[in-house]
Amino acid sequence: MNRRTFLKTLPAFGVLAGTATSFSQDLQPISLPKPEKDGGKSVLAALWERKTNRNISPQKIPMQVLSNLLWAAFGVNRENEPFGGPGRTAASASNSQEIDLYVALPEGVYLYEAVPHRLRPVVAGDFRARSGRRAVATAPVNIFYVVDLAKYSKAPFQEPGLKDSDVVKSYYYVATGLIAGNVYLFAASQGLAAHFHNCDKTNTPREFKLRPEQRVLFAHTVGYPADGQRPR
Amino acid sequence: MNRRTFLKTLPAFGVLAGTATSFSQDLQPISLPKPEKDGGKSVLAALWERKTNRNISPQKIPMQVLSNLLWAAFGVNRENEPFGGPGRTAASASNSQEIDLYVALPEGVYLYEAVPHRLRPVVAGDFRARSGRRAVATAPVNIFYVVDLAKYSKAPFQEPGLKDSDVVKSYYYVATGLIAGNVYLFAASQGLAAHFHNCDKTNTPREFKLRPEQRVLFAHTVGYPADGQRPR
Repeated sequence: MNRRTFLKTLPAFGVLAGTATSFSQDLQPISLPKPEKDGGKSVLAALWERKTNRNISPQKIPMQVLSNLLWAAFGVNRENEPFGGPGRTAASASNSQEIDLYVALPEGVYLYEAVPHRLRPVVAGDFRARSGRRAVATAPVNIFYVVDLAKYSKAPFQEPGLKDSDVVKSYYYVATGLIAGNVYLFAASQGLAAHFHNCDKTNTPREFKLRPEQRVLFAHTVGYPADGQRPR
Repeated sequence: MNRRTFLKTLPAFGVLAGTATSFSQDLQPISLPKPEKDGGKSVLAALWERKTNRNISPQKIPMQVLSNLLWAAFGVNRENEPFGGPGRTAASASNSQEIDLYVALPEGVYLYEAVPHRLRPVVAGDFRARSGRRAVATAPVNIFYVVDLAKYSKAPFQEPGLKDSDVVKSYYYVATGLIAGNVYLFAASQGLAAHFHNCDKTNTPREFKLRPEQRVLFAHTVGYPADGQRPR
């Protein structure tokens, strides 16, 4: 989040993204390898490395690193919680798990399904430029944070006046930050560069085939630092 | 964030907190020891342990752990960034660093000053119950997330219509989540329990002597798990 990209990128996106559109049936689901249990820097050591780095190489990241990254962001880290569902790496309001991660790779956009730990095809084509300008558009992974208001279908969200209120907004933006915090720290622990920023909210709802209850909020770009050595 | 505390605690706080009020001059500033550079679990291993735990012991945490916790949350992790100021462990909108951490300890409330890494006295007295009910009110540390809208004094926040708009709110709630993500992962890396939740927004602005530009958003309770062994 910095001055240049955090506030000023929104109006410019229409002319930046390519017109690549295609059908998701061109893409196959990606079964991600199991996320690793350990490795990389400690939390304290990673926090010393945590920063925004917008200078990101187009170099692809290995499938195991992508798997670890998405799991770190908002994967399932425990089963059979008292409330009846799987627990996630990031908290959410009343465990609504209201944020979905749409992942733009060079070949297409996928929805991250946390329980099977799998990428479900959404649309083929290169939509990474919907995330941002310059290096961001060529970075190997762009994660779009999308809230699904339909996830607020149960109590206590059915209280009068609560639906899509300022209170609910505060919940889903905090939930976005909690996931983004995981992404930043995972990146720092692995020597990856990460950059959280605004994104196109005009074209993506249609292109990503979102329902009216879904809203694109922010995006997070991750890859190897362009100005550094490839980490171990 | 869970059903019981995340949504329903707000109206009940007026009768829960004690009436302890005093003068901050009763308290002395606390110079925190330098945050440690390493130690505890890796980021991946901590993510496997990340969860909300509301069952928190009243046992105090050592000063070095408190120092590490607050630094992890939103401390200074690098000097002389290109934009001219110190870098922090959590990103913020256009580097506004708009969130302040008010820390309620048993003896009083302090403001965390990141650059000197120090706790500045705000008010003496036990205000931990302003954070939540039951165990939360006796937990050793309660962190209140407070946005300071005066930090948005520079471009690009001076654009017309932006001040305290929905856009700005999205920034400070995401910034809160980014800090809270650090707190959750640091806690998980050290075997501490953590619980992010709503808090009293009615009494705290006056009690914490906030300016009109400041707003209390959420709170985070941290301590040793009451149901587990004290970690190493």
